[in-house]
Parts: sequence; structure tokens; C-alpha cells
Amino acid sequence: MTGGGQGREGAPAADASARRGDGPAPLPATQRRILLRRRPRGLVEAADLELVEEPVVQPGPGEVLLRNLYLSLDPATRGWMVDGESYIEPIELGAVVRGATIAEVVVSGSELFAPGDVLVGLTGWEEYSLVDASLLRRRSRRIEREPGVPLSWELSALGGNGLTAWFGLFDVGRPEPGQTVLVSAASGGVGTVVGQLAKLHGCRVVGVTSGAERCAMLVDELGFDAAVDRTDTSEPLVDALRRACPAGVDVYFDNVGGEVLNAALQRINVGARVVLCGAISQINERTLPPGPSHYIRLLTKRARMEGFVTMDFAPRWPEVSAKLRALARDGQLRVVEHMVEGIEQVPEAFRTLFTGEKIGKLTVRLAPEPPALADGDT
Amino acid sequence: MTGGGQGREGAPAADASARRGDGPAPLPATQRRILLRRRPRGLVEAADLELVEEPVVQPGPGEVLLRNLYLSLDPATRGWMVDGESYIEPIELGAVVRGATIAEVVVSGSELFAPGDVLVGLTGWEEYSLVDASLLRRRSRRIEREPGVPLSWELSALGGNGLTAWFGLFDVGRPEPGQTVLVSAASGGVGTVVGQLAKLHGCRVVGVTSGAERCAMLVDELGFDAAVDRTDTSEPLVDALRRACPAGVDVYFDNVGGEVLNAALQRINVGARVVLCGAISQINERTLPPGPSHYIRLLTKRARMEGFVTMDFAPRWPEVSAKLRALARDGQLRVVEHMVEGIEQVPEAFRTLFTGEKIGKLTVRLAPEPPALADGDT
Repeated sequence: MTGGGQGREGAPAADASARRGDGPAPLPATQRRILLRRRPRGLVEAADLELVEEPVVQPGPGEVLLRNLYLSLDPATRGWMVDGESYIEPIELGAVVRGATIAEVVVSGSELFAPGDVLVGLTGWEEYSLVDASLLRRRSRRIEREPGVPLSWELSALGGNGLTAWFGLFDVGRPEPGQTVLVSAASGGVGTVVGQLAKLHGCRVVGVTSGAERCAMLVDELGFDAAVDRTDTSEPLVDALRRACPAGVDVYFDNVGGEVLNAALQRINVGARVVLCGAISQINERTLPPGPSHYIRLLTKRARMEGFVTMDFAPRWPEVSAKLRALARDGQLRVVEHMVEGIEQVPEAFRTLFTGEKIGKLTVRLAPEPPALADGDT
Repeated sequence: MTGGGQGREGAPAADASARRGDGPAPLPATQRRILLRRRPRGLVEAADLELVEEPVVQPGPGEVLLRNLYLSLDPATRGWMVDGESYIEPIELGAVVRGATIAEVVVSGSELFAPGDVLVGLTGWEEYSLVDASLLRRRSRRIEREPGVPLSWELSALGGNGLTAWFGLFDVGRPEPGQTVLVSAASGGVGTVVGQLAKLHGCRVVGVTSGAERCAMLVDELGFDAAVDRTDTSEPLVDALRRACPAGVDVYFDNVGGEVLNAALQRINVGARVVLCGAISQINERTLPPGPSHYIRLLTKRARMEGFVTMDFAPRWPEVSAKLRALARDGQLRVVEHMVEGIEQVPEAFRTLFTGEKIGKLTVRLAPEPPALADGDT
């Protein structure tokens, strides 16, 4: 059986919420959504967001109703909440917070999508999303489900995190086998993938993270060559980096900025590449902290510091996502996730992105996965 | 006549100081040299250097005695005086200060050089230099003299400054015609060449300098499209840059660091290149000042900040120097020099590099130029 299909023709039907396998799942009268009420200053506070209960609206012609299954929580969202100059429009006040999700089509008013289709794309912090089908086509892609590949991975190692790691490492950082790659926030969603990809590429890989537990995880479970605990005050960070990177640093993949960036700059080799992926240490600051005083090492070391935005590589997402999927399915790339249950947990979970309490990609499960196709159906 | 040649065979001869044209110039018994006595902290002070009078030593076999004609004063020398990590060995305490010169061979104990040869290379802050011929061959090149091309230009627009401008602008900055190029310390030896080369390349060119007089010189005499006076306190620098660069900045050629770099980062376009050539605002600081807080614009703008060292491009120096010579000879590139007379002026003149009192390349004339060949001799 292939499931769904009723919605492909013409107008939406009330019974179009048919699901694969177990038949139609009931469509609730209401859903919960999180709206941006106030632009955050500093760490996002309870009053910046509002959890509201609203009716689930049936799609009109050309519209699609999605049930969001998994929601990705990402530091970049903090940047979209404020009205600063960024690479994407800020989220409007009163609007649902924008976010990447895995979603299932439950009712379709467009021939472009059928109930049962599972998509990864940009919707929002809500249980159901009503979206324009043509916009949805641009902002999402269908997931080909595969045994051994959980849907949630499409938000982490096979999705935004993995793509960010890949393009930042290989297209901006360009490490050569044998070179030393240093990555900060190494136990996070991006860092865990950066380190493993660099190892597969034949590099020496060192991670900066917080706490002995995370350091052990990087080395023992993910195969990093060394890990540096940035919260260890027994020696200056730059000394710890010197010990962990005896041959210096050829590529530094920076997710944090601040003192870690400044220390890493003091260890770069001639011709090094500093990849600017994020600056989580300062993303919540109300005023910009001082920049890296050792930026001038870029001159004496003829090195480069370069920012990138994964969005710019969109034409290559499918190709690279397929490569990441193959690596993860074959066990060469371990997917490290921290799963939170229920939309009501989102505001607090989002804060932990910045307080560093979680290991791996932070994802929220909003609804159970629809059963995968049986093998015979593929 | 070709002059010289006596020294090509065998040991040095006392009469080997023969000169082209006017015959042998007298070789003095003593010369003046400037030694590094103390590593400077802050701006170079009188007690950091010592002007000494020492005997002129005749070259032994394999050695060459040079009369230094012109001495180049460059901010980078300050970096060589301290024992920090740099791209070149620091100057030893008690040794003559290293520096680029135009020099004439007066006595040669090597067949590699003949009296009358005029060379540009790295010797030192002294009136005469006794050097190993094989080292001299690696560290210098012969100048083909040409009417309308003063020898001193080989130290400015055709030499280190011009090469630095060329490689930094074209190889690191890579501007496209029509793009906006911003350069700081624009009225200096490097900045004047960067701006003119960018104009010849079809760019919109804006210079940052200090004072109305320099601003007028850039626009009226060198053809810059606009100039910004960084000492003008009537509006924030970033606002002045916004007015001068209405289409943003595609290439920022940074000679100064500090607040100018930070302001320029706030005006960069997507894909911009920030070329780190120097940081004269902080070269004399005892502790590193804060870095550019707006470095994170490199991320949102997918931009790059990259350092370079002209030395790395040594194989291409002859080719590019010839191009610069042709531009200068034809009047397409104006050579802006500030000439100081006599080695006793060097310590004070060197300080003015950092206090910004001069316009153009700062050069010291140590001895009169030998007469150029008559046209019939070429």
C-alpha cells in the first residue's frame, strides 16, 4: 500500500487525514503554538514567548495542513527573534516562532502534496502548520523513509546540523588529511558531526567543550583524538590547546566566539582557516563584547577567518544530505541527539542551548512518528 | 662605458671603489650605523637605538661592500625589533637595525657583483653594509636604471609598498570592477598605491586618513572617489563610512586595525574581503587592545578576513615590480614620497610613521645617487 492520495485531486476533504497503516488519525479541534511576544534582550525569557491554544484550521485550496512531528531547536533562532541585521528576515512580533521541523501532511488542498507525505522543512514552533503549498514546495523536501534511519536524524546529522558541519568544514575550512581540526561546542549538534567528518577525512581532531563528561564522550564514543574542557581553570585555555594540538591548528571551526576563539587564534598555523559558524557565547549579550584581540595572528600567520551561512549552499543540500545519510546508516557517523517531549517544554529547552546543559542535537518530539513502510512496500 | 668590473676577479682591491662616470668616490674611514640597544616597549624611544660611528671595513673574499643610498622606513620594522612571534626572526640586540635599502656596490670581493651595480634589497640602517655575496644575491636584485624613474621609487611604489599593495589588493582582496574598495592609512606608502591601483581596475575607491589636507590630496591629486577623515569628530566614523560608501564595502584593505577596522566591518557587503595588511594603531601597544567587536559581521555577511605577507609572493616580485614601474613611468601611478636627509634623522623619522605626520612613503636619503648611464650606454 502507498497510503494517502485522496487529497491530490481538488479541494480538501474532511476525511483526508488518512494515515498510512493504522488509518486516519483523529484531527484535534485545537493545537498549541508558541508566539513571539517580545524581542528578547539577553537570554530568552518566559515573557518573550507565549504558548497559546488555537483552533486547527482546515486548509483551503492550495494550502496544506501539516502535523509537526519533530521540532529542531537551534541557536540561530535567537538571532531571528531580534530585529538586527541578519541573513534572514526577523520573526514578526505576534507570529509563531520560525523553526525547522519534520512534518507529516495530514490534509492537502494541493496536488503537490498528499496525506502521509513526510517532509523536512521550515515551519514553526507549533503542533500543526497551515501552509501555502507552493511555499511549502520551496521550503521543504520529502523524506524517503528507510529502515535504520530515524526521521529525527533529518533535523540533526542529516539535516541542518549535518549540512552546516559539512559545508563549513569542507567548503570553508578545507582541511587536508593529517592536518589538525579544532572544533568548539564540540559536543553539540554541529560539533559532533564536524569532528566525526574530520576524522573520516583523516585529520587529527580536537574538541573544546565543557565538563569532563562531555570530554570523555568525544574521545571514547566519537573517536576525537583529544578534548579540552574549557571550564577547567587549572591552566589557561591557550595552554590546554597547546597540549592538545602539539602541531598547531590548521582549521578552527568556531561555534562559540569569545575567549575560545581568542585562544584558538593563538594556536593557528601558517595558512590556517578559521571557520565562523556561530558565536553562542555572545548571542544573548545586549551589547557586543570585545572582539578577539589576537585577530592579528591572521596577519602573521597568513590565515583566514571566514563566515558562512548554510542557506547559501541550498542547491547542494540533497547531494550532501544523501552522503550524510549513507554515513549514518552505515554507522560511520554517530548521530547524537537529546530528545525533549512536548511543545510545552520548548521555551525552557531552548534556553538550555545557551546554558550548555545538553549533549548532542536538541530536538523536541511533538507527535509520534507515523509507522514506516514495511519492507515489502518499498 | 659600463664602469666597474675591477672587483669581479679575485680579492678586493683598494682601488675597487671606482664609480661610473665620475671615477672613484672616496671611501670614508668611518660610517654611521644605528644599532638596536633595547627592545622597544611602546613607541620607539631614543634609548632603544644607538647611533654609532665605526670603521668602514673592506670586504674579504666572497664579501661585498655596499654604500646605502636610500633607506626605507616601514612600520613592520617595529615588529622585528621585539621578540614576539612573527613571520621573520627578530633583530638581535646590539645588531644594526634591519631595513630595505637601495645600495651601490663600492667594493666587491665576489664575481657575483661589480662596483657600480645598484641593488634593492634588505641591508640595514647604516651608511655602508658589508655583506656576504651569496646572501646578497638571495636578498637583493639589480635595478635596471631608466630615465624618468628615480631610484628611490624602488623602495616605494615599485618596491615593498607597491608589491604589498598589489598582492594584498589583487591576490587577497580580489576586487571586481565597479565594486567599492576602502583603504585605511590611505595617504601612506601602501595606501596611496592601493587606491590608485583599485581606481585603474575600475573600482569605486574610498580612503580613510587623518586631516582635511590628506583627504583633499587623495581626492584631488590621486583620484580617489571620496576620503573620510577619521579625526573628524562631528559624526561617528561608521556614519561617515556609510555616506562615503553608499553601496557598502566589498574590499577593505586594512593598514590600521582598531576602531577603523571595527567601523569598516559594519559596512561590509555579502562576500566582502577584509585584507589584513597591518595594524599600525596597535603596533606600539604594550598589551593587545580589544579586537574588532563586529568581527561577527563576517558570519552574517559570509565574508572573509585574511592576512598576508608580501614575502610569500617573492617569486612574483619581478613581474609585478615591472608592471608597477610601467604604470609609474607612464604617469598612471603617482609615486608619493616624503624624503628625509641623513641617517641621523632616522630615529625621529621612524617615530613619525606611527604619529601620522607624513604623507606618502617615508624614505631617507643617505648618499647622493650615482649618475645614471647616459642614453648611449644602455
